[in-house]
Amino acid sequence: MTKSLVFGHKNPDTDTICSAIAYAELKKAQGQDIEAVRLGEINSETAFVLDYFKVEAPRLVETVANEVKTVSLVDHNEKQQSVADIEDVTVVEVIDHHRIANFETADPLYYRAEPVGCTATILFKMFREKGIEISKTTAGLMLSAIISDTLLYQSPTCTPEDKEVAEKLATIAGVETAAYGLDMLKAGADVTTKTVPELLLDAKEFEMGGSKVEIAQINVVDEKDVLVRQTEVEAEMSKRIADKGLDLYLFVITNILTNDSVAIALGSKTDKVEAAYGVVFAANVAPLAGVVSRKKQVVPILTEIFAK
Amino acid sequence: MTKSLVFGHKNPDTDTICSAIAYAELKKAQGQDIEAVRLGEINSETAFVLDYFKVEAPRLVETVANEVKTVSLVDHNEKQQSVADIEDVTVVEVIDHHRIANFETADPLYYRAEPVGCTATILFKMFREKGIEISKTTAGLMLSAIISDTLLYQSPTCTPEDKEVAEKLATIAGVETAAYGLDMLKAGADVTTKTVPELLLDAKEFEMGGSKVEIAQINVVDEKDVLVRQTEVEAEMSKRIADKGLDLYLFVITNILTNDSVAIALGSKTDKVEAAYGVVFAANVAPLAGVVSRKKQVVPILTEIFAK
Repeated sequence: MTKSLVFGHKNPDTDTICSAIAYAELKKAQGQDIEAVRLGEINSETAFVLDYFKVEAPRLVETVANEVKTVSLVDHNEKQQSVADIEDVTVVEVIDHHRIANFETADPLYYRAEPVGCTATILFKMFREKGIEISKTTAGLMLSAIISDTLLYQSPTCTPEDKEVAEKLATIAGVETAAYGLDMLKAGADVTTKTVPELLLDAKEFEMGGSKVEIAQINVVDEKDVLVRQTEVEAEMSKRIADKGLDLYLFVITNILTNDSVAIALGSKTDKVEAAYGVVFAANVAPLAGVVSRKKQVVPILTEIFAK
Repeated sequence: MTKSLVFGHKNPDTDTICSAIAYAELKKAQGQDIEAVRLGEINSETAFVLDYFKVEAPRLVETVANEVKTVSLVDHNEKQQSVADIEDVTVVEVIDHHRIANFETADPLYYRAEPVGCTATILFKMFREKGIEISKTTAGLMLSAIISDTLLYQSPTCTPEDKEVAEKLATIAGVETAAYGLDMLKAGADVTTKTVPELLLDAKEFEMGGSKVEIAQINVVDEKDVLVRQTEVEAEMSKRIADKGLDLYLFVITNILTNDSVAIALGSKTDKVEAAYGVVFAANVAPLAGVVSRKKQVVPILTEIFAK
């Protein structure tokens, strides 16, 4: 049997890691030889999750074509967010909940995207459709993915289906969602011990109307914990703009207790952010009231502004 | 309730028309206000189907943004195959069985592609998943779509699932598949009464490695019925090359009785076809032995050759 790999996006978050593991479990139960791998360092929230459920982190890879001919993607589709040599392998399956862009195949494939809050919610349905049991551990990982992506159901990306699936997973996992979820989110939101690259770990690159945009996001319990280090953070942002030829670097600092964000923006196109939110940057900082979701409250709005 | 539209590709074939009708039935049963429309003339095979099951052809539209804000796509995703003003509306759902290319959204959406032979096969599963009955008439249309796309199960695109679904649909529709299917395919394959634009009706445009390629296909019971009119056909192909700035026009004439094809090719990149199939064009004509599927036996091979 030919081996395959499954992975989520670069700069992995809890959904990307846990959904890759869950997908591999689903496919192995169907007789496939498949391994979940990851494209980057485990963040502190995901480390909390893996530790809690006593699961090893997937193996780190830099390239995949040296190992396999086919891959499956979870939690992303845009090639700049995927493995470096994605063009050298065949993508046979995608399970995702993001917009579709910069994705192209030569052959038909299985592609399942749903506008829900979390990849794990779609995977839950696939387990049920195939009549395959979800193990207690994997249920805990999938629950964690939903809690992470929906900020414990507070994000506007959260659908009734996400919540319903999460509660079923909590029952299988034997976890008390509210208490576990807050501990988990706080583990990810403790930024005081993080290095600057760690603060900017959850970064995704987008093409918008011909411009190159990178958007990083971090969850905090107090935005001042990041803003006290603004000079250092901006130095790293400027470096990335120069290295990658970016037109805009937007760093969204999201307070998981107030459900508001503050943004730091650098680059030649910061006016697009001002136009999108009706704000003015002062010392490169502006409030983004009520914004918690990069996917729903940042990417589409900026895409539209850049398209004008 | 906001009205929406669903449609398949330009130059509609039986799957595109019947799947749009079936999709609208599925969504109406779920309470949505949706209408199936079409982007071009009904071909003779589809006319036979609609006449047999006594169903009106969907309304012809040239644009959609003047009517609705959201649309669903069946049987295609590439924007050059879709409605002219596709960029002015929001695609909320795609049900397809082709490669993904030239497709981009600003927001997450429901996208369901499976590597099966026919869109109707996927729609059948969606009816079942939602627990919605398929009417006798719609079952007949969906069966026709599968027969058309798989050439009565003879095409390499046909999967066991397509055949299984077709047999279930035949039972609902009360149709004897083999006899009905051959009559239907012959209705589409009678080319003697067709005008030259009608011969080239099932044409799809592709971008391949920066080149613009149009590939038309027709089913026949004798390829000579087309080749006797080669001069006229080539004049129309040359006109389209000039009008659209194409690099290659490939016309695949498929014999549904022998399951072989003959190709006529014009344009600056006919050498790509020669390289793909190891053939040499003589008077712009070459045999494509065993080729019946544009999707599986033409598009991927040419895409790869053009990418080199």
